[in-house]
Amino acid sequence: MDTELDMSVLNLLSYGMYVVAAKSGDQLNGQIVNTIFQITASPPRIAVSINKENLTHELITQSGIFSVSILEEATPLGFIGRFGFRSGRELDKLSAVKHLRGIERCPIVVDNALAYLEVKVIDHVDVGTHTIFIGEVKRAKNLQEGTPLTYAYYHQVKGGKTSKRAATYIPPITEPPPATGEEGKYRCEVCGWIYDPEKGDPEHGIAPGTAFEDIPDEWICPVCGASKSQFTPI
Amino acid sequence: MDTELDMSVLNLLSYGMYVVAAKSGDQLNGQIVNTIFQITASPPRIAVSINKENLTHELITQSGIFSVSILEEATPLGFIGRFGFRSGRELDKLSAVKHLRGIERCPIVVDNALAYLEVKVIDHVDVGTHTIFIGEVKRAKNLQEGTPLTYAYYHQVKGGKTSKRAATYIPPITEPPPATGEEGKYRCEVCGWIYDPEKGDPEHGIAPGTAFEDIPDEWICPVCGASKSQFTPI
Repeated sequence: MDTELDMSVLNLLSYGMYVVAAKSGDQLNGQIVNTIFQITASPPRIAVSINKENLTHELITQSGIFSVSILEEATPLGFIGRFGFRSGRELDKLSAVKHLRGIERCPIVVDNALAYLEVKVIDHVDVGTHTIFIGEVKRAKNLQEGTPLTYAYYHQVKGGKTSKRAATYIPPITEPPPATGEEGKYRCEVCGWIYDPEKGDPEHGIAPGTAFEDIPDEWICPVCGASKSQFTPI
Repeated sequence: MDTELDMSVLNLLSYGMYVVAAKSGDQLNGQIVNTIFQITASPPRIAVSINKENLTHELITQSGIFSVSILEEATPLGFIGRFGFRSGRELDKLSAVKHLRGIERCPIVVDNALAYLEVKVIDHVDVGTHTIFIGEVKRAKNLQEGTPLTYAYYHQVKGGKTSKRAATYIPPITEPPPATGEEGKYRCEVCGWIYDPEKGDPEHGIAPGTAFEDIPDEWICPVCGASKSQFTPI
């Protein structure tokens, strides 16, 4: 290991949190992205880095159009989990969220959004695992006043996790400790969120003090929507 | 004007604040950048958008190496002004700040930095007024614990301004109001900072209640370092 390369430094770069959505034919999809930035002021152009394995990457490549919804600070973890940890190949992510249609009927997510941009791709750069799409902002609309959600707030205040497909995913230095079960905690193998029986999941009807075994089978991970069976003891 | 394009929406994108520094031959320079993001996790690569007119652009193009210093929240406005509003063609910006030398003796600013990256350019994209440099992070080092300065904090808490050369510069919708002088306020024509006699500039020895005319001639704009003669009444 190169000791001169402290990967944790990359966690000090600051980002927002966005849903990027696109369509091709009848297929719609959206995903969480933090790596968006403006690259020129005049004309207004932005860049975004998207993992090549993602369905959204395929849809943007095919259509050349995408939307960016700027999320508000109060966005629930479950909403971020739906767009950040689930694949559009196995779940119709947009079916349960409010969205508009923009240029060429591209979907625009408006739930939990402060504002949105509609963007036309003008160039792209292959950068290995990801593609940087460079696009011109064709429309931009404000939806409500509020504070934008930042990546730091998502991690530090909300306790959110990063998808392994994200441009900013940093692998853990050590493997998770082996299962001991002594505290009754369980980890979601999809997103890494930890169920702590002391805290429960009151937002979803699981009172503090509920043992993992006593949670109903239909309960799902509040972050990513994985089923109860995808949790393992830690 | 296209009313469907509300440029103020672009202000809701979130960024950090960084000094990007480079050298070519004996010439060193650094500048403030907010548009940096990680584009792939493995290998660690970042992208940055730099205005073609900037000296730093010239130095990175020539050397293919740059450093990124991640600024702390407490970074003084004057430091940001020095790197953000002054040109390296008329001021040796690095002479008065602590800096190291990294790969191929590339300068690395450490004053007010939490950490830094050393980056080798692997690709670049011409995007009009700016170039996106894509680079691989070769070294990354933490210098101190702290909270990174964000672009939102710089604007909202510190009252900072944006250079007209920035990728994220949004031109004002209306021109500044004509000079009236009735409140005794003066605007810096370089960075837009406003001197308010009620507040003074106590950090630099100008007590609240000091009329602009009574400020010593050697006083400079606390944000960008412009001289007193570059202020005009508003």
